[in-house]
Amino acid sequence: MMDRGLPGYFSEEGSAETVNARIGPGADARLAEVMAALVRHLHAFIKDVELTQAEWEQAIGFLTRTGQICDDTRQEYILLSDVLGASMLVDAINNRRPPGATENTVLGPFHVDGAPRYEMGADISLAGGGERCLFEGRVLDLDGNPVAGATLDVWCDNEDGFYDVQQPGVQPAFNNRGVFTTGADGRYWFHGIRPVSYPIPDDGPVGQLLGQLGRHPYRPAHMHFIVAAEGFETVVTHTFVARDAYLLSDAVFGVKQSLIANFVAAEGGEAQWRSEFDFVLVREGSP
Amino acid sequence: MMDRGLPGYFSEEGSAETVNARIGPGADARLAEVMAALVRHLHAFIKDVELTQAEWEQAIGFLTRTGQICDDTRQEYILLSDVLGASMLVDAINNRRPPGATENTVLGPFHVDGAPRYEMGADISLAGGGERCLFEGRVLDLDGNPVAGATLDVWCDNEDGFYDVQQPGVQPAFNNRGVFTTGADGRYWFHGIRPVSYPIPDDGPVGQLLGQLGRHPYRPAHMHFIVAAEGFETVVTHTFVARDAYLLSDAVFGVKQSLIANFVAAEGGEAQWRSEFDFVLVREGSP
Ligand SMILES: [Fe+2]
Ligand SMILES: [Fe+2]
Repeated sequence: MMDRGLPGYFSEEGSAETVNARIGPGADARLAEVMAALVRHLHAFIKDVELTQAEWEQAIGFLTRTGQICDDTRQEYILLSDVLGASMLVDAINNRRPPGATENTVLGPFHVDGAPRYEMGADISLAGGGERCLFEGRVLDLDGNPVAGATLDVWCDNEDGFYDVQQPGVQPAFNNRGVFTTGADGRYWFHGIRPVSYPIPDDGPVGQLLGQLGRHPYRPAHMHFIVAAEGFETVVTHTFVARDAYLLSDAVFGVKQSLIANFVAAEGGEAQWRSEFDFVLVREGSP
Repeated sequence: MMDRGLPGYFSEEGSAETVNARIGPGADARLAEVMAALVRHLHAFIKDVELTQAEWEQAIGFLTRTGQICDDTRQEYILLSDVLGASMLVDAINNRRPPGATENTVLGPFHVDGAPRYEMGADISLAGGGERCLFEGRVLDLDGNPVAGATLDVWCDNEDGFYDVQQPGVQPAFNNRGVFTTGADGRYWFHGIRPVSYPIPDDGPVGQLLGQLGRHPYRPAHMHFIVAAEGFETVVTHTFVARDAYLLSDAVFGVKQSLIANFVAAEGGEAQWRSEFDFVLVREGSP
């Protein structure tokens, strides 16, 4: 009656091993590795906190509600991954780069394929409003040489903190979006508005959790960039507006210090602000 | 540009600490403890396996589908917890008992309140079918004294592996269910059918996962018991049919060796089988 540790039968001590011993020989090796690690860490978590039955029931309810609020335009599980820092961690692990190279950050849910291709100097703010800003800089390789033919796919929110896709009918399509291609000098420059901080959707289970944890739902103001060039690793990133109040408390942990860009009040000219940022790309296949 | 470890900004190395430092002073202390541990273990898992972006997307999709298949009668997240051994682990942690006491196992989704109260010796099989079985034994305290006035709430599947609530209109209500109360001798005995092994619902995301892991969805045959008595800890458990083919591979890890009951072919009398099992209860407030 007391052989609680016998293989195959469940015991508190050997719980994860019993579960993982069940994986069959036909399982995909990588799936088996990932699931066995998941079970080990899940069981260690439950043991660490000695999760109560009531807490387990709360967790089941939370996970269920988080799935059920998802639809074609809302992905609450990505939001959960974001606020737990998991999205940023996966991004970091899969995009390690040498010192000096521009770092990645999360793509976010508001990228749209097929934004208009503009000549350098164009204005991506179709609706006006907000504080005008000139974005400029260079695309370089790690040796400081300009990268020609690099595309910069850029997008940001409007002065009220909404992306165009969040306000169909209110904002024109492709408002504050555009794609630019560098010439031989690797330079880019375009006009738009200075982005503003905005809350992630906080009217669902994830927003409730943030509230219970004493956390706010805001992201510091940022301009999104996807910078791609033949022969180089694509960089998915943002530039963050320096001195934003939420830089140290981004709800999704997207801020890396190297991505904070200067936004300076421009003297004369048409833009009220000017932001300069150089993107440094790593060649594909680099160690 | 290279101060990647600065507090507040995200870094791969300090990822969990950055997330947990965000918890506000107003958060409930226990919630803060549980969530901080969850984040530590989640990040350790992601780092251990170096989860790829594609795997992260698969995980998001799986968690979303698991939530969306839930409805009033289906709880796929409990099923997921069950097949990962998490349900049994939470049960074990919250129901540690001294040697000799009857162990808990999972409640399962098929318990129904308000089953008929019967006199000892009654037959809980309202629909007939299956192989007849006499269940008997005693409810005892740790010193071997009989416990009078103990209730045994019992339920099992029919000969096709379905509980009554899974087949409304096919099985009569409360088929294979009943509540019995012990007298001064602590004895119980009732008639029913020998339970059979059955698969957990395997037509959803959890069933797919089991298939990919090379695992079957079956539970070994068992009779459910909730044994309760004034002044004693309630025991939620099953007795398992000895020699069942799935005893060492229960899909939900519910089997503990101490819960395997003898099922012997009865000589003469009305029952074809006889299963004897004594329940040993622990007084409330015992160390
Ligand atoms: Fe954004
Ligand atoms: Fe059952």
